[in-house]
Amino acid sequence: MDINWIEKGGVTSPSGWLAGASYAGIKTYGDEPRYDLGLLYSESACSVAGIFTRNAVCGAPVTLDRERVRSGVAQALIVNSGCSNVAMGERGLRDASRMTQLAGQKLNLPEQRVLVASTGVIGRPLPMKKIEAALPEITPSREGGLLFSRAIITTDTVIKSHALQVSTGDKVYIVGGTAKGAGMVHPDMATVFCFLTTDAPVSPVWLNRVLREVGDVSFNMIDVDMDTSTSDTMLAFANGSRGGTPIDDRHPASDALRKAFELISIELARDLARDGEGARTLIEVTVQNAVNLEQARKAARTIVSSPLVKTMVTGRDPNLGRVLAALGRSGAVIDIARTTVWIGQHCAFKQGIPTSLSLDTISRAMDAPEVKLRLDLGVGSAEATAWGCDLTEGYIHINAHYST
Amino acid sequence: MDINWIEKGGVTSPSGWLAGASYAGIKTYGDEPRYDLGLLYSESACSVAGIFTRNAVCGAPVTLDRERVRSGVAQALIVNSGCSNVAMGERGLRDASRMTQLAGQKLNLPEQRVLVASTGVIGRPLPMKKIEAALPEITPSREGGLLFSRAIITTDTVIKSHALQVSTGDKVYIVGGTAKGAGMVHPDMATVFCFLTTDAPVSPVWLNRVLREVGDVSFNMIDVDMDTSTSDTMLAFANGSRGGTPIDDRHPASDALRKAFELISIELARDLARDGEGARTLIEVTVQNAVNLEQARKAARTIVSSPLVKTMVTGRDPNLGRVLAALGRSGAVIDIARTTVWIGQHCAFKQGIPTSLSLDTISRAMDAPEVKLRLDLGVGSAEATAWGCDLTEGYIHINAHYST
Repeated sequence: MDINWIEKGGVTSPSGWLAGASYAGIKTYGDEPRYDLGLLYSESACSVAGIFTRNAVCGAPVTLDRERVRSGVAQALIVNSGCSNVAMGERGLRDASRMTQLAGQKLNLPEQRVLVASTGVIGRPLPMKKIEAALPEITPSREGGLLFSRAIITTDTVIKSHALQVSTGDKVYIVGGTAKGAGMVHPDMATVFCFLTTDAPVSPVWLNRVLREVGDVSFNMIDVDMDTSTSDTMLAFANGSRGGTPIDDRHPASDALRKAFELISIELARDLARDGEGARTLIEVTVQNAVNLEQARKAARTIVSSPLVKTMVTGRDPNLGRVLAALGRSGAVIDIARTTVWIGQHCAFKQGIPTSLSLDTISRAMDAPEVKLRLDLGVGSAEATAWGCDLTEGYIHINAHYST
Repeated sequence: MDINWIEKGGVTSPSGWLAGASYAGIKTYGDEPRYDLGLLYSESACSVAGIFTRNAVCGAPVTLDRERVRSGVAQALIVNSGCSNVAMGERGLRDASRMTQLAGQKLNLPEQRVLVASTGVIGRPLPMKKIEAALPEITPSREGGLLFSRAIITTDTVIKSHALQVSTGDKVYIVGGTAKGAGMVHPDMATVFCFLTTDAPVSPVWLNRVLREVGDVSFNMIDVDMDTSTSDTMLAFANGSRGGTPIDDRHPASDALRKAFELISIELARDLARDGEGARTLIEVTVQNAVNLEQARKAARTIVSSPLVKTMVTGRDPNLGRVLAALGRSGAVIDIARTTVWIGQHCAFKQGIPTSLSLDTISRAMDAPEVKLRLDLGVGSAEATAWGCDLTEGYIHINAHYST
């Protein structure tokens, strides 16, 4: 198999996919309008799979999508940013349904084939008139993928968009994806938003399994601020427009395609962590030789989520005790006498005791846009990696003044 | 029963208790030395009970104390700040034991009667020579209680010390207490440090039960930064020096004395939350009518720990959705249509939908040194309260530059 990144790729890189965006005036920057309404559309019906937030308070769009993806078929997605349509009671459900109805009318699709996602402030009504007025301004196109990516972001400073070309046997498939999320990021099933598209012919069953596996090693392994969003939504669409025999688990292209989904999801997840609210540094934590996979994941994610580990990276301060304290409260089985910790290339703690390495040496090695921590627990063979970001004054500035 | 606060009270307010502190040079502020070695001593043997961190990485002093409190008897406590003696392997255990030996020699007690607690940077050796040199400088006295409180603090900006007088029948007992902790505060069994003393005649069994009950409604309900410390230690000592018949559960003074322990512990826990690193505001979250006590506690503590709820208070920004999102991920059973939320005296969300109250009104009500959130879940009858603090730039400044 052969897998290659496509330059400036995104959700419309696979064939048969169109997208676009317009300004509804829900999300503004001062007086300046921002793209805040997006439409993603496949020329033919798709297999679809979705994973959603486990937060008991969830948005009306999540409730609606969760029901609709059960059919395994969809063809379009309408998205807005600036208002999440969460905690709005019956009105919220009516508004979410109305959004899919409007998109269906525009695209000449039954509303049951349309999914919806909303992100932004919680507990405010969706301005439906603005959405109705802005929707006709969208003209979905092959070039509209990056516009769509711009329409879904909120406090993100950059768009997140990637695509991969998968060559397998005599076929070439493309997988594209986009994601958003900079705060309230501690996904439990999926991130705030991640949308994946492909032109490969896969069944909803295959897509479901792969999306769950891929979600667990990508979006379920990142953190910005330990707050799980009420709108987490990860959707994968496959329209099969490249043709070929349907791909199931035994198909020779299955592994390559699964790998492409995984690579894009991890890349998008890393993009989100790197662009966390106020972040200046990407933190990567790898835990090796844990008792089992669940414990390896829990340990990696607990460490990467710790405010004290985050601020240690902010200050380039190799305060190793904080890493050990976070490991200790993670719930993973540990034996401190077998525990070894690397910061970057430097072994700072070896089998239970600090090494003689100078703090200055480690501190200098931490002065990079990406800081890697590696822990060898020495009690098993499971490994997991998690991503997060440092905690800076910028996070406080953004979040002390977000809704009003 | 009659319970009254004692002005400037502390651990030496109960009779038969002496304390003191000196400078060992472990904790400095620039070049200025700070009290960093403390000694607490009872003139007679005490019943003792302790609860400790559940962090799997724990300090050598925790390991030693956990073993020694099993006997139910102790008479002295030696404490240092500036170095926590955590993650130092065999050497850590030898140093912790040596501290109790030195204190025992000074006080003419077997070392088994002495407990030890250390707080500060993790993964550095204790400077034993400095401790040996500074210990003779301590002269325990009745007046030394507040000096002892100063010796145990690290990034705390104020000492935490209280005492209550309990009059019950013809007897008068005093309960005193002190605590420390400003960062790495998310106690799981106890806070960083809380030491309680009394002159009442209680058994180790009574003390154990009461300490656990009281810990659950005080230190186990606060949070500064979600990071559980490796050194959490809560100890209660009762020397019985006021005489009277031994107090057990059926004794008429049992309830009053238990209440005094609870009041002091809650007050100390609130002191800690109010003085959290960088904090300007105490946050109190009460969850009412939850399905059971465990869920009420989990919900209150999840909300008070949320970085987004904290920064909403920092900015006096009534961004209610963040409170609902934290409630939703807490694991408590909720029915959003029965959920009502008050910010201060203002009902901001009533049975599933936002009220029409203006955000300006709520924002003004939040402009106080203490912000109270109250949630009625409407699905049961259990209630719990948790305390935390806002998250400010000050937290980042303190923690980006702590160890080096």
